[in-house]
Amino acid sequence: MKVTVLAGGVGGARFARGVREHARRSGDIERIDVVVNTGDDWWLAGVRIWPDHDSLLYTLAGENDDERGWGRRGESERVAAELQAWGVTPPWFTLGDLDLGTHLARTAWLRAGETPSQVARRLGTRWDLGVTLHPATDDEIDTHVVVEGGDRMHFQEWWTRHRASLPAIRFEHAGIAKASPAPAALAAIGAADVVLVAPSNPVVSIGPILAIPGMRDALRRAPAPVVGVSGIIGGAAVRGMADSCLAAIGVETDAAAVARHYGARSRGGLLDGWLVAEEDAASGPALTADGIPSVAVPLWMRDADTSARLAADALAHASTLRADARRA
Amino acid sequence: MKVTVLAGGVGGARFARGVREHARRSGDIERIDVVVNTGDDWWLAGVRIWPDHDSLLYTLAGENDDERGWGRRGESERVAAELQAWGVTPPWFTLGDLDLGTHLARTAWLRAGETPSQVARRLGTRWDLGVTLHPATDDEIDTHVVVEGGDRMHFQEWWTRHRASLPAIRFEHAGIAKASPAPAALAAIGAADVVLVAPSNPVVSIGPILAIPGMRDALRRAPAPVVGVSGIIGGAAVRGMADSCLAAIGVETDAAAVARHYGARSRGGLLDGWLVAEEDAASGPALTADGIPSVAVPLWMRDADTSARLAADALAHASTLRADARRA
Repeated sequence: MKVTVLAGGVGGARFARGVREHARRSGDIERIDVVVNTGDDWWLAGVRIWPDHDSLLYTLAGENDDERGWGRRGESERVAAELQAWGVTPPWFTLGDLDLGTHLARTAWLRAGETPSQVARRLGTRWDLGVTLHPATDDEIDTHVVVEGGDRMHFQEWWTRHRASLPAIRFEHAGIAKASPAPAALAAIGAADVVLVAPSNPVVSIGPILAIPGMRDALRRAPAPVVGVSGIIGGAAVRGMADSCLAAIGVETDAAAVARHYGARSRGGLLDGWLVAEEDAASGPALTADGIPSVAVPLWMRDADTSARLAADALAHASTLRADARRA
Repeated sequence: MKVTVLAGGVGGARFARGVREHARRSGDIERIDVVVNTGDDWWLAGVRIWPDHDSLLYTLAGENDDERGWGRRGESERVAAELQAWGVTPPWFTLGDLDLGTHLARTAWLRAGETPSQVARRLGTRWDLGVTLHPATDDEIDTHVVVEGGDRMHFQEWWTRHRASLPAIRFEHAGIAKASPAPAALAAIGAADVVLVAPSNPVVSIGPILAIPGMRDALRRAPAPVVGVSGIIGGAAVRGMADSCLAAIGVETDAAAVARHYGARSRGGLLDGWLVAEEDAASGPALTADGIPSVAVPLWMRDADTSARLAADALAHASTLRADARRA
């Protein structure tokens, strides 16, 4: 079986690691591809930073700092202090030294003319990831945020400097009208037996992937069922600041509301199925009536076991949907 | 008095520090400008490296590693190991973390469209240098070395990887035919009361400065006397691998031979005067006959005292030459 996951950063990385763990245990997954959000990417001090990709890379490589939740294990910040002394980085964004090595390598390859997909492939060879990472697009679609009062800033400034505390009016992806899905990402979607939507931020992680012209069509045409996992449990975001993002687009911080925001694939949306936490089970019948058959399972990814189980539950739900579709 | 120094890296930095020390002690130097060799500059892993400029910057800032002789005090190499793991830097060139901060800031400003002269000015504001550094040219004139057998490599590979051990046939500066002196460097030469040529490598430090079209003319037209300091003492280079470089251009490793290589300004060359070590005093009369009046003084720059004294000796020699010229 081939599994393709749409994913953002930290939550996506934990989910992808769970899928890989399930694959190792079950032995019935031959290939895992991850289509990675590029909406968080940005240029800083002349280097190209891919926060979500690198969260996936380091987590799958076992090189992430699990305590802090992001970045490299054993990280230091020697260069960052210099960059701030020179005034080329703002005080609210610190580049780790080990992380900077990745940024510099990536930037060198990009400047040499390689596409982001090619660069991701190179970055993926250093460690045995067991997963192939694909930027959702080879075009730059950096996110900007328009906040109340009309100020416009790069997503990273809103997210990292202001901790998403400035009320956002809308998110804009510069240049997205001319962007297209990366061919390798499209191929991974087209070849998948199951497409899973990770419990990542629906607005700023999954949203930018879906906003790439052609991506929604590709997902609708995919032969595989598309099953999403809620990143909202009992009305609260599992991590990150998803509530601020959902508020900006007028969606409630609620598992069912997010499912309806994605929409039923049978009615032109994204999802064939949906996984919610057990405390959100009550929304199940209404969602099923809305064309998004849902199951309630344990959603907390605490360790390898719980993450692998969540992946197994998502694949089992996809399998049921496929069987239902065959019967229909 | 305004003093302008032509200089390369480590030797040039020590000499410039000596000029500054003499200025502080004597109180009769109002301004020190240094025209810096750019022939060692190169691109590595997408960042622009200015070895000679940075040796001057760190030395004048008191931030250099005096024991090692180059780079920053308290340096570490966390990023370098990553860059090598990614394969974007060769194993024979290690970028220090603190140093990398400088490279990244510089590269960001260059990519934003600033000239090297503008960037040098910015870099010069962080510390109180007491000296203004000017790249000799705003054009890239990276040095390549053709070695016996015909192989061609970047100067840094020849110098750092091979320790100048491969016999060099010639040095080539890519793009130098279209290069021109940086306006600020020219202005510093034109406004000087004395021009000093630091005891830097005559071939790969002073040579590239002189090879910039228009630079020799500017020095010939300068109203100030031009006085050089030998980097060769008793037939041996004070530091670096000047002998390999001199051999490549067919010049003996000898203080008088280097003076003749620079040539008498009165006969179309560079020098009005020349300082040699006391052990090389015997060459004095012949050099004077060749139009390069020489004096023998202690050349070893061991500390602030000896460096300041050497600067004072060079300025005194220039003063004598000026008086002689007035009498003539």
